[in-house]
Amino acid sequence: MGVAAGVDGGDALAVLSALLSEDLAACNRTIVARMTSPVALIPQLAAHIVAAGGKRLRPLLTLAAARLCGYPDAAGGERHVQLAACVEFIHTATLLHDDVVDESLLRRGLASANAVFGNKASVLVGDFLFARAFQLMVEDGSLEVLAVLSQAAATIAEGEVLQLATQNDLSTSEESYLEVVKGKTASLFAAACRVGAILGARPAAEAEALAAYGMNVGIAFQLVDDALDYAADQVQLGKTVGDDFREGKITLPVLAAYGAGGAAERAFWKRTIEDSEQSPDDLDHALRLIREHGAIKATLARAAGYAQSAQSALRVFPEARLREALLDVADYTIRRAR
Amino acid sequence: MGVAAGVDGGDALAVLSALLSEDLAACNRTIVARMTSPVALIPQLAAHIVAAGGKRLRPLLTLAAARLCGYPDAAGGERHVQLAACVEFIHTATLLHDDVVDESLLRRGLASANAVFGNKASVLVGDFLFARAFQLMVEDGSLEVLAVLSQAAATIAEGEVLQLATQNDLSTSEESYLEVVKGKTASLFAAACRVGAILGARPAAEAEALAAYGMNVGIAFQLVDDALDYAADQVQLGKTVGDDFREGKITLPVLAAYGAGGAAERAFWKRTIEDSEQSPDDLDHALRLIREHGAIKATLARAAGYAQSAQSALRVFPEARLREALLDVADYTIRRAR
Repeated sequence: MGVAAGVDGGDALAVLSALLSEDLAACNRTIVARMTSPVALIPQLAAHIVAAGGKRLRPLLTLAAARLCGYPDAAGGERHVQLAACVEFIHTATLLHDDVVDESLLRRGLASANAVFGNKASVLVGDFLFARAFQLMVEDGSLEVLAVLSQAAATIAEGEVLQLATQNDLSTSEESYLEVVKGKTASLFAAACRVGAILGARPAAEAEALAAYGMNVGIAFQLVDDALDYAADQVQLGKTVGDDFREGKITLPVLAAYGAGGAAERAFWKRTIEDSEQSPDDLDHALRLIREHGAIKATLARAAGYAQSAQSALRVFPEARLREALLDVADYTIRRAR
Repeated sequence: MGVAAGVDGGDALAVLSALLSEDLAACNRTIVARMTSPVALIPQLAAHIVAAGGKRLRPLLTLAAARLCGYPDAAGGERHVQLAACVEFIHTATLLHDDVVDESLLRRGLASANAVFGNKASVLVGDFLFARAFQLMVEDGSLEVLAVLSQAAATIAEGEVLQLATQNDLSTSEESYLEVVKGKTASLFAAACRVGAILGARPAAEAEALAAYGMNVGIAFQLVDDALDYAADQVQLGKTVGDDFREGKITLPVLAAYGAGGAAERAFWKRTIEDSEQSPDDLDHALRLIREHGAIKATLARAAGYAQSAQSALRVFPEARLREALLDVADYTIRRAR
């Protein structure tokens, strides 16, 4: 499916980045230009995480959605670039706070900002980037965009708090788990797409379609992330494997294995996840149980379903290289697990 | 000066609250109504800090500035109430993050939210309240208000980061210290006043005057706070005395005592503040040095100067009970130290 069909996961993003290379370069310039502050620690810490790379997946979605909806038109315009940078700032702010909350030491395979600069600076620079994101939106001047992104920001925080509330609780329903996934991850994917679509001033159905694409890609992305935490090696994932287990996070692989296990297995999960009593061998045992019950496979199958829903949503758009690239990005979210 | 002259500090706020009692009650209802979320932990934690009282000083400034500028007029309106709630949400979000950063165990004489609910929940609920504040602004629909408050939010974060960067550094200049004070505290006082003034659609000079009032009151307020940290007893202040000393925060009392001290005293400050090597008797010794050098008195005198500047700024307004009440609030920031 799509021009890049058959390429491996990373190449789908490379194709999208290439199609949008000028926009992406402009977005990166805006990011660097707007994370400045007279307080030197702010650009230092921000550079560690914003400028150090990352896939720029969310701003790419904003740029792609704008272009797919005909923005900028012949008259030109840079609003999509500014708003893509704004989306990346919101994402970065949540990453900084996430890593504090999770006490993570690695991010994208490098030392996390909190590990280098401390939790305090990470909390405060996250706040700064969040505020700066709103300044960028205010400069853009669209109340519709502001409504979408302030709603997304509130939803992200709700998802994160719900995740905290369900931590160590094996009675968490799959429905609650999916609420967490939609909130903490997929809502920003959806908003990133919707904001791009708004710029094109096209029929509402197109903005809805792109928001649905973003929401479903985001869910697929997070489900795969949760699967990889029990499957990937550290190099591939760029983060410590078993983080979710150690933190007692409730994710689909655990819920699936717990639901399928007998009394002894349930006792194991209760001790390790609910009571947080873990010995050095427990992660290996957890990985074995999850493998035996096919919980990774089941999680990835669910993710594939969401990726397909994402692709279906794009049917309202005519065939075009950009649409094909977005279809491939949906595949990429799944393929990166292989 | 003013109708409430001669009353003690707390009464100045009581007078202002009484003059604005209906607005304040409406603001409190909005605060409670809008901190709801399907995620139960959010209103629980928010109630601990938002609904548990506090002086509502910042939202009172928004309400007072609006009324002083003739909003609402005969046609009515509730925008000042909504924006006052929004200002309180921003303030509360920063309090939650501050207490995490400072590892504070007390807030307004009660256990702080992070002490009760943990740092993680405090960071994330702070993020939620910040996002909700922006949603309230977007509902209000004024890009001018959004610009003022998103700028203030960025400035607050910059002030907090600068404070972190100057921590434990006795070479910090008074100028840098004042930048911290303006950023972390006074900028929101100024924005709270300016936002109220914007609603009245009066000449720009009046918004400028109210913003200057807010900025100067905010600086006075923080200087007194910093003085009280080396002077007040725990009951009066509602927080642990000596917090700033233990954290190695650079405040005016310390800079003044350090600047006036001889070699032995400087060595004491370097050991305790710069090297964070503190023994149980050190706080008492610090308090003695600060008293001996008149550093509290000097700090309060500076604060009084800012309070006078705040009062001068209000001269553009005709005499009225509300103006007199604001003049008395400026006095209150000083008098609460006695």
